[in-house]
Amino acid sequence: MPLTGRSILGYSSAEARGASFRATNPATGESIQPPFYSASVEDVNRAALLAERAFGDWSRASGKTKGVLLRKIAENIEALKDELVARVSEETALPVPRIKSELFRTSSQLRLFAQLVEEGSWVIARIDRADPNRAPIPKPDIRSLWHAIGPVAVFCASNFPLAFSVAGGDTASALAAGNPVVVKAHGAHPGTAEMVGEAIRNAARESGAPEGIFSLLFDSGIEVGVSLVKHPSIKAVGFTGSREGGRALMDAAASRPEPIPVFAEMSSINPVFILPGAMRQRSSEIAKGAHVSVTLGAGQFCTKPGVIVTAADAANAGKNEEFAAALRELMRAGGDFTLLNSRIHQSYISNTKVRANQHGISKVSQPDASPASDGFRVAPVLFETTATAFTHDAKLHAEIFGPSTVLISNSSRDELLQLARSLEGHLTATLHGTEEDLREYADLIAILESKVGRLIFNGYPTGVEVCHAMVHGGPYPATSDGRTTSVGTQAIYRFARLVCFQNFPNASLPDELKDENPLKIWRMIDGEQTRDPISPRSRATSQ
Amino acid sequence: MPLTGRSILGYSSAEARGASFRATNPATGESIQPPFYSASVEDVNRAALLAERAFGDWSRASGKTKGVLLRKIAENIEALKDELVARVSEETALPVPRIKSELFRTSSQLRLFAQLVEEGSWVIARIDRADPNRAPIPKPDIRSLWHAIGPVAVFCASNFPLAFSVAGGDTASALAAGNPVVVKAHGAHPGTAEMVGEAIRNAARESGAPEGIFSLLFDSGIEVGVSLVKHPSIKAVGFTGSREGGRALMDAAASRPEPIPVFAEMSSINPVFILPGAMRQRSSEIAKGAHVSVTLGAGQFCTKPGVIVTAADAANAGKNEEFAAALRELMRAGGDFTLLNSRIHQSYISNTKVRANQHGISKVSQPDASPASDGFRVAPVLFETTATAFTHDAKLHAEIFGPSTVLISNSSRDELLQLARSLEGHLTATLHGTEEDLREYADLIAILESKVGRLIFNGYPTGVEVCHAMVHGGPYPATSDGRTTSVGTQAIYRFARLVCFQNFPNASLPDELKDENPLKIWRMIDGEQTRDPISPRSRATSQ
Repeated sequence: MPLTGRSILGYSSAEARGASFRATNPATGESIQPPFYSASVEDVNRAALLAERAFGDWSRASGKTKGVLLRKIAENIEALKDELVARVSEETALPVPRIKSELFRTSSQLRLFAQLVEEGSWVIARIDRADPNRAPIPKPDIRSLWHAIGPVAVFCASNFPLAFSVAGGDTASALAAGNPVVVKAHGAHPGTAEMVGEAIRNAARESGAPEGIFSLLFDSGIEVGVSLVKHPSIKAVGFTGSREGGRALMDAAASRPEPIPVFAEMSSINPVFILPGAMRQRSSEIAKGAHVSVTLGAGQFCTKPGVIVTAADAANAGKNEEFAAALRELMRAGGDFTLLNSRIHQSYISNTKVRANQHGISKVSQPDASPASDGFRVAPVLFETTATAFTHDAKLHAEIFGPSTVLISNSSRDELLQLARSLEGHLTATLHGTEEDLREYADLIAILESKVGRLIFNGYPTGVEVCHAMVHGGPYPATSDGRTTSVGTQAIYRFARLVCFQNFPNASLPDELKDENPLKIWRMIDGEQTRDPISPRSRATSQ
Repeated sequence: MPLTGRSILGYSSAEARGASFRATNPATGESIQPPFYSASVEDVNRAALLAERAFGDWSRASGKTKGVLLRKIAENIEALKDELVARVSEETALPVPRIKSELFRTSSQLRLFAQLVEEGSWVIARIDRADPNRAPIPKPDIRSLWHAIGPVAVFCASNFPLAFSVAGGDTASALAAGNPVVVKAHGAHPGTAEMVGEAIRNAARESGAPEGIFSLLFDSGIEVGVSLVKHPSIKAVGFTGSREGGRALMDAAASRPEPIPVFAEMSSINPVFILPGAMRQRSSEIAKGAHVSVTLGAGQFCTKPGVIVTAADAANAGKNEEFAAALRELMRAGGDFTLLNSRIHQSYISNTKVRANQHGISKVSQPDASPASDGFRVAPVLFETTATAFTHDAKLHAEIFGPSTVLISNSSRDELLQLARSLEGHLTATLHGTEEDLREYADLIAILESKVGRLIFNGYPTGVEVCHAMVHGGPYPATSDGRTTSVGTQAIYRFARLVCFQNFPNASLPDELKDENPLKIWRMIDGEQTRDPISPRSRATSQ
């Protein structure tokens, strides 16, 4: 399939005219064919209006109908396999096995949301039955569910060209909830975006979905994105990217005549705490694990550990030094790390340079040799500082995207708690310890519970399981709205809203709320969970 | 209990100094003793810091502990009965039976939230069990729940001195979720606020809750409220009031270094549609019901019908005119309507005057005699216009708080659908019809579903049932966040956030997530609802 470089507007395409840009191969720094044309103001408008027009039908489509589309998208993407993997590799320099596993994750995610809406209980149907005899006034029949919110703008992430991009988690959950989606492609992997976008468009056509449930806009800058977020037809935004980018969209959305929710996943340093019991048992194993987690994907995961803290242990002071020495050694050994694009590459180089010279940094460990100069290659860097310096210097809390982390050794219990209190919101926090350590540091857990979305025990934050209980979120600035998750089935509630029906005749209710429970979903009837129908008699009515 | 006029700061009180104000009796226009002292910047800071300090303990308090406090608050408020009713009556001129029923609603609401947290399933515990044998990587054990969000600022509403004020729905749901609360009293009923505030403070002391879970700040202006919303210790805001006030708080919260969610319930005109079948059967009954709903509480409910639309019916054209004549007659008959305060009184007088002279208004019906001039008395006003004028003039969509509404007669099917599409977000929409009408107007229901939080059949929007399925919300500008509700048990999720635990030892998990399910709550285990424990074997672990 030859790439066209044209934005997808429902079942038609934008003109190939105006400003254009090309992707760059991060391994070589060379640009890749073809040119991609930035969407015009009219293109943005058309995509948003098509989405608004499609909303009515799609928001009321059955779970079965929505499942057909989501499964079809998964199939179509899988069918692209080799061709898609090659283009992703060219545009991102990510290793092929990683791309393949991300592709599998993307299609699995689509199928998980298909299953969720086919089963149907996700709407959290609640029924409070009428009581016509209640005094002083009869109790009405009230039934509520979660309903689609409206057209959603989705922004592709630089670091997940598939799983958090055109057909990623935001698109899957927004479509599953019943919303049309307008995707803004990432400027660094537009070819990947077009291929996946065509797969979605074909799936929509093949499954008879209304035109406008999907559009894809190209742009190398921020203009198209901002005008999309400000378009009155758009009712919610999903974004994964930098803190500056996310905050700019939050501000744009908040200043609209009709403010809309923005679900932006931004920055996180994912603190790791290593407690004495664990250090005594497995210091070298943890050093290896931490190194893998810091350098995985060239350190370009939002869950990369950006600070590692070891707790002082008077009885075994040497263990922390052993750990630090092992981690220094691993980081100094280097590796082949190519960053995703020139912006990330430039930021990494300048941010590590600034940090290396920053007051409070006591030691810097990196390979002796510089990395090869072709493409966006970088070297890993380990910084060391003290708990006190870190606690009082916000600059040390800033995320550096890439294979770098900060080590803080031998923190006393008080230092460690103060450091935890000084943290902003993050996606995760990790504890290595024994069960005894956890009891000992219960107050640390309590602090971290209010700082992050996910607490990990004896593991690493990289690797985010896609499941019902996953929470990939956290207080600002980790995300724009720490109440939600962008991974797992609970992500669907970001793109939905509560609606209730009072004293409605059974026949005019959505299937999920009908007496007979035709979809056999879990519902809360008068406060109790059940899959049973309710008898028509029992809604005897105050109408 | 003599009133002191001093803000409540945890277990101490603010100084009686600085600027002060007094409440006004709306029935007489006379001011009432004693003076109330506006909170100082230091008072705001102290209240917020006490709340932050209390958060750790309160957020981890058991449902049983939180239930004890909520029930104690209900008891203490009920114990105030006559004294409290008298003060509310003096400060609001609301009829005593209404005040008594609002008091009952307030204590019932507190007990409903007590019951909710004592039972415990509200946390929506989800457990995805580990699978150490999964390829290519083992599946971790992930368990999530909803957890308290942090100190909440609550603003009292002018029109519900009890049920949406100091111990109202926002306070009840925020405390139930595990959050300390700092309440900003309404300037029009500070005495009511102090009495209820003391009842809460005593309940907190008596039940051994941490100091700082409750504070109450006085102010006649907006300064204290704005500085509270901007305080870094505050993590969410609950507000019921005007569109201007709500939007100002939204903007203040969105521009913080750390933006926080604002749950503001603002303005709504609650459209009522009367379809041909219903009109043929019950035109005079509906006219009476609509009049009661428009004038209930002097038209000062957020659910007051602000526009009533009758559908053209060629076969029975006379019915709509009968209905209009009856409604005009009822509105012209007047009644004794005293508004809550001078601001609402002035707005009503000027807004009804402007609307009466507005282009597109074809008829104005009001009593011949002016209302008595003592206090904040007003006359009801019925405006009439056409569907076309209404659809194209945003000014006619504006809420007028007080006993006034707009009637649009004989709309054709197309006019009616266009009018519905032109609506902003509202709290409710009401349909009067037969079941056949509903089938006939399915497309109207579909439009309204995306415009409101609650759809009512053959009833009236005033009267909001406090139950599990209630949705008292709606898209902006009805509320700041149309995804949620401010009434009913689902309101608790506004003041909570998702947190998950990965591979945590059973002993260190919150009780809600422990294998043995000690609280016997409903949980989702691998996607299925159950109250059963899980066997320790089944979490066989990837640790």
